[in-house]
Amino acid sequence: GDEGDKLIFRILNSGDFLKKMDENDFNKPDLSKIVNKISEKGLRYDLTVPFARFVVKNQNELTLPFKRYQIQPVWRADKPQKGRYREFYQCDVDVIGSKTMINEYELIQIINSVFEKLKINAHIKINNRKILAGIFEIVGEADKFIPITVAIDKINKIGIDNVIEELNKIGLSKNAIKTLANLLDKKNNSNNNISELKNILTNNPTGKEGIEEIEKILNYLENDNLFVKVNFDFSLARGLSYYTGTIFEVIANDAEIGSICGGGRYDDLTEMFGLKDISGVGVSFGAERIYDVMEQLNLFPEYAYTSTKVIFINFGEKEENKCIQLAKELRKKGISTEIYPEQAKLKKQMQYANKKNIPYVIMIGEEELNSETLTIKNMNSGEQKTIKAEELIRFFG
Amino acid sequence: GDEGDKLIFRILNSGDFLKKMDENDFNKPDLSKIVNKISEKGLRYDLTVPFARFVVKNQNELTLPFKRYQIQPVWRADKPQKGRYREFYQCDVDVIGSKTMINEYELIQIINSVFEKLKINAHIKINNRKILAGIFEIVGEADKFIPITVAIDKINKIGIDNVIEELNKIGLSKNAIKTLANLLDKKNNSNNNISELKNILTNNPTGKEGIEEIEKILNYLENDNLFVKVNFDFSLARGLSYYTGTIFEVIANDAEIGSICGGGRYDDLTEMFGLKDISGVGVSFGAERIYDVMEQLNLFPEYAYTSTKVIFINFGEKEENKCIQLAKELRKKGISTEIYPEQAKLKKQMQYANKKNIPYVIMIGEEELNSETLTIKNMNSGEQKTIKAEELIRFFG
Repeated sequence: GDEGDKLIFRILNSGDFLKKMDENDFNKPDLSKIVNKISEKGLRYDLTVPFARFVVKNQNELTLPFKRYQIQPVWRADKPQKGRYREFYQCDVDVIGSKTMINEYELIQIINSVFEKLKINAHIKINNRKILAGIFEIVGEADKFIPITVAIDKINKIGIDNVIEELNKIGLSKNAIKTLANLLDKKNNSNNNISELKNILTNNPTGKEGIEEIEKILNYLENDNLFVKVNFDFSLARGLSYYTGTIFEVIANDAEIGSICGGGRYDDLTEMFGLKDISGVGVSFGAERIYDVMEQLNLFPEYAYTSTKVIFINFGEKEENKCIQLAKELRKKGISTEIYPEQAKLKKQMQYANKKNIPYVIMIGEEELNSETLTIKNMNSGEQKTIKAEELIRFFG
Repeated sequence: GDEGDKLIFRILNSGDFLKKMDENDFNKPDLSKIVNKISEKGLRYDLTVPFARFVVKNQNELTLPFKRYQIQPVWRADKPQKGRYREFYQCDVDVIGSKTMINEYELIQIINSVFEKLKINAHIKINNRKILAGIFEIVGEADKFIPITVAIDKINKIGIDNVIEELNKIGLSKNAIKTLANLLDKKNNSNNNISELKNILTNNPTGKEGIEEIEKILNYLENDNLFVKVNFDFSLARGLSYYTGTIFEVIANDAEIGSICGGGRYDDLTEMFGLKDISGVGVSFGAERIYDVMEQLNLFPEYAYTSTKVIFINFGEKEENKCIQLAKELRKKGISTEIYPEQAKLKKQMQYANKKNIPYVIMIGEEELNSETLTIKNMNSGEQKTIKAEELIRFFG
């Protein structure tokens, strides 16, 4: 869509990037013409569109339904600000080639496992574009689907009053705005107002299908006691134009940062690359935002801050060789080990261990070398112990 | 360096990218001037320079020596060809703030572990730029260090004769070329010709230091019986201008694809960002080339081609719910499980399991549902077995 196009970073052609320019471009510079003459490539905007292209290109080799996950950086030519980055990693999960709601249900399971493991309290907002479409049809504004969803999508950022103003600008009828505003009203947003929408949409096939799909998903969820709660939310619209059915958004309960995961179902995305009637559904986790939430809420586990478990103090060349041998044995056992690389003053080496939160310091000086022993200092308790070199592995057993 | 600059992808400024252009730029277009007016950013060329910048920027928070690994995509505005990509992932390991050769030794250990685990037969070429510099000094061509190394670096691509021709073009004396050609001659390249170089460099402090560093590393390695062999190679030069000491290159023995890992020591890289006298050393693994080698040599393990272990056949709504429950239990045990998302014909579902190499197919039809059993088919043996539903976990125990 247009909104997205503006946010694509363009790459200048290599070599003589001016070679396609003609006199007119220099006499009457026209940005939108020139940009396509000097730039053929752009930076990846998301992972869903490239995925659809991949599926079309490899349709003869792939077995449908095709499932994949993908973690890669994407770029947005946006003003950087909290929670909004010019380069960030998306972690996408998609199923393509299957229309049933069990796919949506399984994606919810994945979202639940992820945030349960990360200990992030969060909830999933869920809606269906067919419900939105149905309502827009009923209020006689079906032709303005995209601009209305773009406006509604901003409700959490700009509030209901500003959304109403935008709907006014788009040219919606007073009646249409009134109906939408009523349905968008926060107080009505809960799983309960599905029945209200169901009543309104009884005679609208599109909307009815949307309701049925949402109910199917909620039925699957009935017996699950998920860590991440799922709430139907009619005000959820999503900004991207390619969604046609279910839409998701995950919000962290205890941090203000926008959505940390989002996605939905797309029926026609492969069509732009020449393959019809392949429906897909997927979600995308925003790695940096999730990181921000975890940092803000102190959710990183202690071990995320300690990488090395054991360090050997360096007392000189002879001692170093012994340390190298023993370090090899520890590493073989999966114990992450360092040897201080310089024969620096003991104080400096201890400071290094301290600053890096290394819990065990091993000292092999001349005495230890001669007696085939080593001294281990527990940096947390301060306790120090001399053991035989051959007992080292057992010490960490 | 200039060679690198040409390979950087430039990003067109967002918005009105022509706004810094003046009349002259339109009347007499000059590529090198215009490029800086319409583009401020470029795509990451490698991970070492950004790492040096990071270290300088965070010098007050970091504890030196500082170790880090980093896996990220980089870009080269190059003609794509076998083993040469426009976008590829580098996997870098660096230590900065320590000058001793134990760091080089530990990097060799890392290289060894990586290729031993991946079962790629490979060898490490090792050299030291100080040895090259020493020789260039002795033959009276010290001022042409960069162009000579760039020429030597191509020896495996273009052969010794073409390198000699390039050295001629650079303007080296006949004598200098003769000495270099003799030392570069493949037949002389082995750990043995260190002593020859040692003799030549006795009175050259730079070269002597290089020899001592190499010998120190080889000493550390003496008692190691590494999977990846280390060979001193005077013809190894590396293309990048920032290396000042040890240089490495890893070559796969059984595949022709150029180096699959490379690196070296850099003494002055942080200086360009304002911090002097911080020496670092690191290596970079080329993920795509390693992937190519593994694919070419069939080194991917069987499990790399099977992701799902169990699939539930979908016989309809009622049966599906039972499958969902059991799938949850299997997944909790870490057994990767799918439920076929559509109530398709059995043949189609079995074909899907077959194509995806899924070893176990579970069928719960009406009969199984009523008797609380399930039928498991082993897709490799063809064997089929009906067990009680509650025995499922134990079956995969």
